[in-house]
Amino acid sequence: MKSSAKIQVVEPEPTPGDTGTAQAIGLSGYKVFNRIVDWITTDRMQLLNITDRVNEIVRKSGVKEGLVHLQTLHTTSALFLSEWQDALLHDTKAFFDDVVDANRYYRHNDPEYSDCERRNADSHMRGMLMGQTLSLQVRNAAVLLGTWQSILFAEFDGPRSRSVAVQVSGI
Amino acid sequence: MKSSAKIQVVEPEPTPGDTGTAQAIGLSGYKVFNRIVDWITTDRMQLLNITDRVNEIVRKSGVKEGLVHLQTLHTTSALFLSEWQDALLHDTKAFFDDVVDANRYYRHNDPEYSDCERRNADSHMRGMLMGQTLSLQVRNAAVLLGTWQSILFAEFDGPRSRSVAVQVSGI
Amino acid sequence: MKSSAKIQVVEPEPTPGDTGTAQAIGLSGYKVFNRIVDWITTDRMQLLNITDRVNEIVRKSGVKEGLVHLQTLHTTSALFLSEWQDALLHDTKAFFDDVVDANRYYRHNDPEYSDCERRNADSHMRGMLMGQTLSLQVRNAAVLLGTWQSILFAEFDGPRSRSVAVQVSGI
Repeated sequence: MKSSAKIQVVEPEPTPGDTGTAQAIGLSGYKVFNRIVDWITTDRMQLLNITDRVNEIVRKSGVKEGLVHLQTLHTTSALFLSEWQDALLHDTKAFFDDVVDANRYYRHNDPEYSDCERRNADSHMRGMLMGQTLSLQVRNAAVLLGTWQSILFAEFDGPRSRSVAVQVSGI
Repeated sequence: MKSSAKIQVVEPEPTPGDTGTAQAIGLSGYKVFNRIVDWITTDRMQLLNITDRVNEIVRKSGVKEGLVHLQTLHTTSALFLSEWQDALLHDTKAFFDDVVDANRYYRHNDPEYSDCERRNADSHMRGMLMGQTLSLQVRNAAVLLGTWQSILFAEFDGPRSRSVAVQVSGI
Repeated sequence: MKSSAKIQVVEPEPTPGDTGTAQAIGLSGYKVFNRIVDWITTDRMQLLNITDRVNEIVRKSGVKEGLVHLQTLHTTSALFLSEWQDALLHDTKAFFDDVVDANRYYRHNDPEYSDCERRNADSHMRGMLMGQTLSLQVRNAAVLLGTWQSILFAEFDGPRSRSVAVQVSGI
């Protein structure tokens, strides 16, 4: 019942700002390439365009056809696709303020019920609503994106140091 | 044009509460391990922490590097990541009540338009909004999760018997 | 560090309405099958049931066990699972109108801040909220779906010509 996979683990040369790198290659050419990428955010709510960073990892992975999976490791942040335009980013943040009311009563912000002192229940609701994972197709050794699609990381409880796990798999 | 994959189908020993088990192994060590896992819910809206159950399946799969894909088979339920804290779970349910108004008029609840007698349009909106699938990375034979991330199953129209399909793939 | 995968690229026979077809097969039988599928929408907000189309592509791919990944290539559209029932589709569109207020002030719709003349900020919010990607399990050469689950494409800024990238991977 145990896997008989022969896995070759390679440690690629480190890149500044990338940590936790590892690569596993199956005998067939199917491979899994793992990285953790870090950012420092500066505002409580902030949107980052991480498209170039993800594409760089896909290129380094050597995967030509397959999937790239992104996962923020923090519950008060999110990953999603949107257009990268200043006016729209402003509207997007206003929408997050509208759809999750920060000033409503939350038990998570009430010392009687919670030992969390960040008073960040709204950040949790936003991270949960927008999603903490994102899968995208890799085609021809690049992330597949429509003309107006960028990969956004949303900080909902900054400023903080944030990590996104990137996994590229395929052939 | 047809696949030339040699697939070895193995039936692992059954585990109480797990059904529909199957495993397919490609020649290369790349493999796909499928399971259906069941829960019985007790409330109309209920949150379950299914992290341990998913990790157990990943361990049994023998996959060391790859993806685990979760899919609830019901439109009035959802899967997502969040922190598992009593106060926050209370707030999360209150948020679902806020963002989807159960008392609004819905055609789905109106016998003139619909033969569904559960009056569960709000449950459908919540399942659709929060998402019925979740992909996570498998690294070192375990589900990758941040310190505060748990895998939550949300029941929006219980009590019911609910099934989640779990697929582990990789090497 | 480079991939040593031998990839055989095959051009399957074209199907009317499908473009951008390609197929890559690893030595092991693991394969990746890519397609772009197009639709013409007729309303500003419109829901399409694309389940049959996706299943047809999965069948053609020859993949028996694995994943099918769907990605709309447009920021003002979305993909998600829901029940396909007339009354519920009506409610779903009303919900999108409620959760994102089209008549609110948006910088994206203001010529002083934006050169976009479509005044479609609400469409962007809806596409971002509902998600532009969807992964589903392939089991026994078919898309795994619960009894009431259909795959929906949501148009939020039609009428338009729209493309969805479909990738089937596995063995």
